[in-house]
Amino acid sequence: MEPIRKIAVNTGGGDAPGLNAVIQAVTFAAARLGWEVYGVREGYSGLLDPQNYPDGGLMRLTPERVRNISHLGGTILGTVNKGNPFKVTESLQGGMTVAKDRSDEVVAAFRKHGLDALVAVGGDGSLTIANMLNKKGIRLVGVPKTIDNDLSATALTFGFQTAVDFATECIDRLHSTAESHQRVIVVEVMGRYAGWIALQAGVAGRADAILIPEVPYDIHIIARHLQDVGASGKAYAIVVVAEGAKPSGGDVMVKAREAGRQERLGGIGERIAGELESLTGKDARAVVLGHLLRGGSPVAIDRMLGLTFGAAAVDALRTGKDGIMVALQPPNIAHVPLEDAVKQTKLVPVDGYGVLTAKALNICFGD
Amino acid sequence: MEPIRKIAVNTGGGDAPGLNAVIQAVTFAAARLGWEVYGVREGYSGLLDPQNYPDGGLMRLTPERVRNISHLGGTILGTVNKGNPFKVTESLQGGMTVAKDRSDEVVAAFRKHGLDALVAVGGDGSLTIANMLNKKGIRLVGVPKTIDNDLSATALTFGFQTAVDFATECIDRLHSTAESHQRVIVVEVMGRYAGWIALQAGVAGRADAILIPEVPYDIHIIARHLQDVGASGKAYAIVVVAEGAKPSGGDVMVKAREAGRQERLGGIGERIAGELESLTGKDARAVVLGHLLRGGSPVAIDRMLGLTFGAAAVDALRTGKDGIMVALQPPNIAHVPLEDAVKQTKLVPVDGYGVLTAKALNICFGD
Amino acid sequence: MEPIRKIAVNTGGGDAPGLNAVIQAVTFAAARLGWEVYGVREGYSGLLDPQNYPDGGLMRLTPERVRNISHLGGTILGTVNKGNPFKVTESLQGGMTVAKDRSDEVVAAFRKHGLDALVAVGGDGSLTIANMLNKKGIRLVGVPKTIDNDLSATALTFGFQTAVDFATECIDRLHSTAESHQRVIVVEVMGRYAGWIALQAGVAGRADAILIPEVPYDIHIIARHLQDVGASGKAYAIVVVAEGAKPSGGDVMVKAREAGRQERLGGIGERIAGELESLTGKDARAVVLGHLLRGGSPVAIDRMLGLTFGAAAVDALRTGKDGIMVALQPPNIAHVPLEDAVKQTKLVPVDGYGVLTAKALNICFGD
Amino acid sequence: MEPIRKIAVNTGGGDAPGLNAVIQAVTFAAARLGWEVYGVREGYSGLLDPQNYPDGGLMRLTPERVRNISHLGGTILGTVNKGNPFKVTESLQGGMTVAKDRSDEVVAAFRKHGLDALVAVGGDGSLTIANMLNKKGIRLVGVPKTIDNDLSATALTFGFQTAVDFATECIDRLHSTAESHQRVIVVEVMGRYAGWIALQAGVAGRADAILIPEVPYDIHIIARHLQDVGASGKAYAIVVVAEGAKPSGGDVMVKAREAGRQERLGGIGERIAGELESLTGKDARAVVLGHLLRGGSPVAIDRMLGLTFGAAAVDALRTGKDGIMVALQPPNIAHVPLEDAVKQTKLVPVDGYGVLTAKALNICFGD
Repeated sequence: MEPIRKIAVNTGGGDAPGLNAVIQAVTFAAARLGWEVYGVREGYSGLLDPQNYPDGGLMRLTPERVRNISHLGGTILGTVNKGNPFKVTESLQGGMTVAKDRSDEVVAAFRKHGLDALVAVGGDGSLTIANMLNKKGIRLVGVPKTIDNDLSATALTFGFQTAVDFATECIDRLHSTAESHQRVIVVEVMGRYAGWIALQAGVAGRADAILIPEVPYDIHIIARHLQDVGASGKAYAIVVVAEGAKPSGGDVMVKAREAGRQERLGGIGERIAGELESLTGKDARAVVLGHLLRGGSPVAIDRMLGLTFGAAAVDALRTGKDGIMVALQPPNIAHVPLEDAVKQTKLVPVDGYGVLTAKALNICFGD
Repeated sequence: MEPIRKIAVNTGGGDAPGLNAVIQAVTFAAARLGWEVYGVREGYSGLLDPQNYPDGGLMRLTPERVRNISHLGGTILGTVNKGNPFKVTESLQGGMTVAKDRSDEVVAAFRKHGLDALVAVGGDGSLTIANMLNKKGIRLVGVPKTIDNDLSATALTFGFQTAVDFATECIDRLHSTAESHQRVIVVEVMGRYAGWIALQAGVAGRADAILIPEVPYDIHIIARHLQDVGASGKAYAIVVVAEGAKPSGGDVMVKAREAGRQERLGGIGERIAGELESLTGKDARAVVLGHLLRGGSPVAIDRMLGLTFGAAAVDALRTGKDGIMVALQPPNIAHVPLEDAVKQTKLVPVDGYGVLTAKALNICFGD
Repeated sequence: MEPIRKIAVNTGGGDAPGLNAVIQAVTFAAARLGWEVYGVREGYSGLLDPQNYPDGGLMRLTPERVRNISHLGGTILGTVNKGNPFKVTESLQGGMTVAKDRSDEVVAAFRKHGLDALVAVGGDGSLTIANMLNKKGIRLVGVPKTIDNDLSATALTFGFQTAVDFATECIDRLHSTAESHQRVIVVEVMGRYAGWIALQAGVAGRADAILIPEVPYDIHIIARHLQDVGASGKAYAIVVVAEGAKPSGGDVMVKAREAGRQERLGGIGERIAGELESLTGKDARAVVLGHLLRGGSPVAIDRMLGLTFGAAAVDALRTGKDGIMVALQPPNIAHVPLEDAVKQTKLVPVDGYGVLTAKALNICFGD
Repeated sequence: MEPIRKIAVNTGGGDAPGLNAVIQAVTFAAARLGWEVYGVREGYSGLLDPQNYPDGGLMRLTPERVRNISHLGGTILGTVNKGNPFKVTESLQGGMTVAKDRSDEVVAAFRKHGLDALVAVGGDGSLTIANMLNKKGIRLVGVPKTIDNDLSATALTFGFQTAVDFATECIDRLHSTAESHQRVIVVEVMGRYAGWIALQAGVAGRADAILIPEVPYDIHIIARHLQDVGASGKAYAIVVVAEGAKPSGGDVMVKAREAGRQERLGGIGERIAGELESLTGKDARAVVLGHLLRGGSPVAIDRMLGLTFGAAAVDALRTGKDGIMVALQPPNIAHVPLEDAVKQTKLVPVDGYGVLTAKALNICFGD
């Protein structure tokens, strides 16, 4: 393999606290090896449409430039949600749009700039794209990003704990309001396929019920549980719902994936609040945390993890790795083939200690 | 006036951070004077329906008991939203309900327990009730409570700054998400008649537009402003909306009061997001903070204010005051006749330095 | 007066949350008037030693550049603590140093760059320097900055509330530790001449004693109070001490000013912990918060205040003001002659509602 | 084994966020099995000296009582630091003290109250005592507690992440102050034998150097590193020091254990600040976070872990376990013989990814 002298890093898909930590560590680790580092603006847009950016789409990254970014939310490179270079949406005359494969342009621009390798940070979609670009010849190491923490290949992803902590703080705040108004408050959190955020924040936030995609729920069971809780002297209730939670009956995984095609499941919190209000006779309200959970300064563990992934990605390139994703498999950092990296969703084990602890605390899952 | 030996304190209406600080200070200040203090449970319910409570509806409050509550959200006494003893809702056979005047029972129970005076903590509604009970002979000092900070008689009310700070933190978090998704995010906050929370949190949170009840808005002006902002290179926008914001045209105060009759205006954030999406062509989403802003540990200023009001209320009773409300009129604590206390809404002055500062920062009010 | 086309802004003295808000508002407000804005690096160093800075000591400030800085701690311009251009320390051969008056160079550089006016943000020392430069012909408006909130001319200064809130959070955290170890914890906070931070954070943080410069303390009175508290069943105690607190006896203000000549009073927390340990027989420890209170993201009120001062400073220049400082005198922004601006220290009134509330809560001041 | 009907839980040693979560989960889990639960006040004091407590030293714990405590710092049971029933300090006439073995009294009181088993929550010392009581016939399951996270038997302990997060927030705040004053700030954190807190908070907090017990440091290497950092344009520095950090030379583990005999190492932060000031010529200050890191509301992960340990301890008793400690060995909860539980300190691996990441970020360990 040719020696590396110049690499790029980009970030794709939704926002997650810890992205800037990855960028910071990639830059420092590469600089120690004497490599130059460039940040591609907004996924692959900096390579495809350089004219849109004052710096020609590539931001020169030096330790001085990125020294103080690991604690900042967002990403200094920008990230575009649907930036698939294999299917770039273009508008035609008459208002129609077509999807155009511009991946060869990405490869050509990459070569033109003399870039030797790419560190691609992203989720499911971005890593699939990365894999396809790798097959087209771009030397590449992936870094996983999912705020839902639902990737089997890695024990943890950055952004998750920040989301859990803020969701927990929000739930803490809702207790006194729910209590003084003697209400049921339904808190909707992220988690399309897996209920990690709902489970952790629900248990930490002293919820009475937690609905997650892994456990199809029966709304009557939840309503009955809330009435039992009320009978025991607690005049209010908190229900935490993952956006991908599903009522029992039917093939749940199929349903979840269908729902995933929409941009956001939307409204499950409000639907459940409505159902619980009519079933229990109690005033019920929904609070949708979704957008609030992606931002903010990453908590320490997410900074550490982003930094570790960034440093490990550069180290993988240094030792000749290609077409892999770095992953946390404690106490080690592992290398997983990109091919397999995003295949398997990490679901909440219904008999794991998380759910068992929740049940010991008399938290209802609707099953 | 007879010497006081035994007083009660109660909290009414919606939750606000700082209520426990009032209770703590009332208890300490009264104990220093050798008075006994009792907390009435859930507004006046502890007096009307003592059988519902293990302690007979009155919680004995001692310095030891309340020493460590000023930092806690909610109220240890409970608060019932519609607990008007002049209009207690009772269910008849056949599902009908009637409103019954049980105020004489309150007075009788008050006498029976040997209570000499009441410190009544509450908003608009609760203080009106307090005034009526005062006319029926209950010696009484009121403490104002409105998270919206919209009471003319007092420069500040507790809970307000806690709400502003948390709203600001939420807006901070939304920036990176709005940016990475290149979205308009509409943040709905409390403020039915006055836009204090929206103004303060909007300016502190670097909003592009702020809609408040005091300034009727033209949605087209806002949309145009967001497009100008976009043209200047900022690909996202944050709009902060008070729940009582109103489009221009028609008598605004009338409309606001009408709306106030509903429990919550509901949906203005989402309505505006929809309108802005169709006018600007940008993806727009609403985030409703309402329920999140009432809870949580009060920030220092709200603890200080709650404690000050509590101590001042006892001091007012000590010096023979009756039928008044304590209020902050810096650098003094003032006594305002209950009669006048809740008459006047404190609106955001449209030519005050708050709005002027916002305008200097190029924030649009839709006017 | 000549029309203004180009202004500068600088920040001097210690760090305070809200400085970036001032810079942001100055930039926006000036840009609306068509003025160019430059930030002088590190007090006056950017004018005196331009060769030390890549941008020649002046940072071009545009709305785009400063759009997202009001929420950041510190100052993007830097601030040097002892940057008095009238007494610049220079090293001579042989290790000696001399103080040189380089103020004429400041004026000359100011003219050379075509700057028409300066917004000088700073405390006591920086505003005195500003006044002297104003006398030498630099058109100038000052913005007050003191985290201690001890300036008579203005009702509030930015940074203060952020410091109080974080100090309060720290004290909250110390309760459980103090309790489980049955200790006296002495918390030292800033406040050389005035005890505002100690008073507010001490009351909000449920302290047992608060020592402030305004009330000379008798350590035996405090020790006796802690023993009384202990006898009432509370096995631990929190004492909050302003760094400028003084034992009774002697001329206190003289002593405080003397002490002020040292960079930091240092060790008063530990000294008091030691004395209380020997007097009460209880384990006592000191926690010094000093350095922690200057940093961090400003809370909403401090952002608002910094932004308001910045916008008001530009407005003052626009209307021809010169040699004044902007100040908050609710509900107005006032203009105070620089001459008088820093003359009077705002002390905690010992019979104000703050101290009275504290005393009602059985908090001891050692008097 | 006899069926269990009545159990006790106690907490010993220093404060750690998450203790109340353990108590909450023990209570709920036991209540589900129909067991009665009692909390022993202040370690074993509630059993030894019942006359000191209004409730006779045992607090009846029901789900209603503990429903809302998992988010609170401290412990509702109290904890006494040196409460070893095998060596109770007693004062003799003349001011002398003797250590008395009162362990038989503990066993007798335990029997007298009809208690069938004990869940003992504590660190090193408390679990050694628990093991000795277990040998005397008290059926017992231990729950590990160390804020330093330095126990080999478990992957994580509660309280640790809360400490890391708050230390990180403090370091974040110190950046702007260190920068504006161009200072070296030395931040001392807990960690007598292991540097986990220093490592995590130091990396997350963007420190320039991190000193941990596992890596003996050479102060000259650190000073040189800070000068290199300064030469690269960063005019300030942050150094994070674990209280157990040691200079190179001599047998480090022996020294650390020696030091451990003192209650607190004390002063290492200040010593290092002094040395760095004289070696680098820069102004250097120490900030000691020690006492601040034990308090506060536990972050989500620590609540979850405390709850999990509490539920698992009850489950272990249910299935007949005795003389063991519950531990996290992901993805399982393991049972470790008490004998072995506290034997091995979990040190930071000097070639693990944490240290490697730090080194990639150009953080100096002084080696």
